[in-house]
Amino acid sequence: MILAVCLNAALDLTYHVRELVPGASHRVHTVEERAGGKACNTARVLAQLSVEVSLCGFAGGARGARLREALVGSGVKDRMTPIEGETRQSVAVVHDGHVTVLNEPGPWISMGEWQALLTEVERVLPEVRAVVLSGSLPPGVPDDGYAQLVRLAREHEVPSVLDTGGSELLAALPEQPTIAAPNHHEVGDALSAVLSDPEDVLDAAGILSGRSGGAVVVSVGGDGLVAVEGARRWRVRPPRMLAGNPTGAGDALTAALAWGLVEGRNMPDTLADAVSLAGAAVVRPTAGEVDPGVYRELRDLCEVEEVA
Amino acid sequence: MILAVCLNAALDLTYHVRELVPGASHRVHTVEERAGGKACNTARVLAQLSVEVSLCGFAGGARGARLREALVGSGVKDRMTPIEGETRQSVAVVHDGHVTVLNEPGPWISMGEWQALLTEVERVLPEVRAVVLSGSLPPGVPDDGYAQLVRLAREHEVPSVLDTGGSELLAALPEQPTIAAPNHHEVGDALSAVLSDPEDVLDAAGILSGRSGGAVVVSVGGDGLVAVEGARRWRVRPPRMLAGNPTGAGDALTAALAWGLVEGRNMPDTLADAVSLAGAAVVRPTAGEVDPGVYRELRDLCEVEEVA
Repeated sequence: MILAVCLNAALDLTYHVRELVPGASHRVHTVEERAGGKACNTARVLAQLSVEVSLCGFAGGARGARLREALVGSGVKDRMTPIEGETRQSVAVVHDGHVTVLNEPGPWISMGEWQALLTEVERVLPEVRAVVLSGSLPPGVPDDGYAQLVRLAREHEVPSVLDTGGSELLAALPEQPTIAAPNHHEVGDALSAVLSDPEDVLDAAGILSGRSGGAVVVSVGGDGLVAVEGARRWRVRPPRMLAGNPTGAGDALTAALAWGLVEGRNMPDTLADAVSLAGAAVVRPTAGEVDPGVYRELRDLCEVEEVA
Repeated sequence: MILAVCLNAALDLTYHVRELVPGASHRVHTVEERAGGKACNTARVLAQLSVEVSLCGFAGGARGARLREALVGSGVKDRMTPIEGETRQSVAVVHDGHVTVLNEPGPWISMGEWQALLTEVERVLPEVRAVVLSGSLPPGVPDDGYAQLVRLAREHEVPSVLDTGGSELLAALPEQPTIAAPNHHEVGDALSAVLSDPEDVLDAAGILSGRSGGAVVVSVGGDGLVAVEGARRWRVRPPRMLAGNPTGAGDALTAALAWGLVEGRNMPDTLADAVSLAGAAVVRPTAGEVDPGVYRELRDLCEVEEVA
């Protein structure tokens, strides 16, 4: 079983409008509701791949209740920790082929609620074969929250995939996440560096990998990803251009990394899966979903280039 | 007491973002929540003017509960009818001086719920000195819903102000609303006419007034309003240009019309109030609020032009 930990879960609303005109009023003609937040999207992708997956995180108030209802029947096992605060909402506006996303800030998490989450994660870890840690931290969670979770996983000999940025990423690297998977913006922010081409990103990934001792996989948007593991470096480009909604692509990429760990795949195969699954997410308007046909098509075409 | 009837009430969220870039993800840095929908905004403006005001309408689910909580302490008396469905939400995104609004469709209203609302309105009417009917109809409410409410008010000798458009407006005119107050887009839609200048709008208002036998006041956005009552016609321009959020301006205008009826003001004074209060709403980022200083300033400067 894979455990996804979504510390900043959200009730995701998708609004369909004809076009989005800044400054105007819009009639929303369709509203969809689902469980969201980065690790939650990753969990939903894994469930689509028929991988056994559980979700830990925080859920509170009416929106938290709706988020948990939305998990029923999704294939994702609900192990959410109740909180006093109200789960945040995020709104994705789908308009003429584009998606504009508005993410509310998360609710306050008390120390008691954080401890309750750690207890729940520790209770589940004996059954877990990989942990996904992904997304921002809500207020109240300690800055080293991901570091604590990576350490907890390591103590249980469970490999971890960490997708976050900034100080949260830097604080967790010494705890040795098996794979760190930030995007290139997050890497630039974390290192206070301007990364102007994939070569820069590879060098930055090498720095992060030196600090964690593990693999580092960095998505570079439409250009695919770069990866470093020990002395080896790879670059994987999408086999073809894909138009659509990039918001869930990183979460699908993270799903492929955790899936690869559980299946014992080698790194090049895992990276080809990651780029293909990210592409299969871009063509879907909703984060947390992948198009199986596009995944298979891309997977057949995808070539992994080892860089000297 | 003024009774505002808000058939399509909404829990209004205001999201503050730095800028709004279609196709991008945005971090919302502040979220505000309030009771919304057109007649509800009008009620909140009246409460700010220290006018006694009650609100009828539909409220259901967690959002309906939050809407009713938001009314507590607002000065608006809650007389909402509970419904099975979930109250809709609307999202106003405030960004670099502009407001972009996303209005969800309303919940389904059953015949029993509609009857319960009529019963509540009828129960309150003996204490009421003017009724405000404003906004769209949610699904399930009969197309002649406003006609029924205008008739009910008339049977209790209570004057009514009706701000709606399209077939709902046309269906209600034969029931003789005291003042019909659509905006110029709604008038154009109702008459299937292209209204290219204020003269056209005045002629169209005259047609509507001929059908209702009452006054017709039509807002023309930043150009102020035009009005027809019997053989008299007026045009009122804002004394100065105002930048801001036009979404609540029409609701403040409607508030002034109801206030004028209750205070027994003559039409020119009421129209000057209406344009001034609408301007005082434009300068506020939130619908249902007015700036008292701007209101007084505009009211002193506002001139009402009688048109031959």
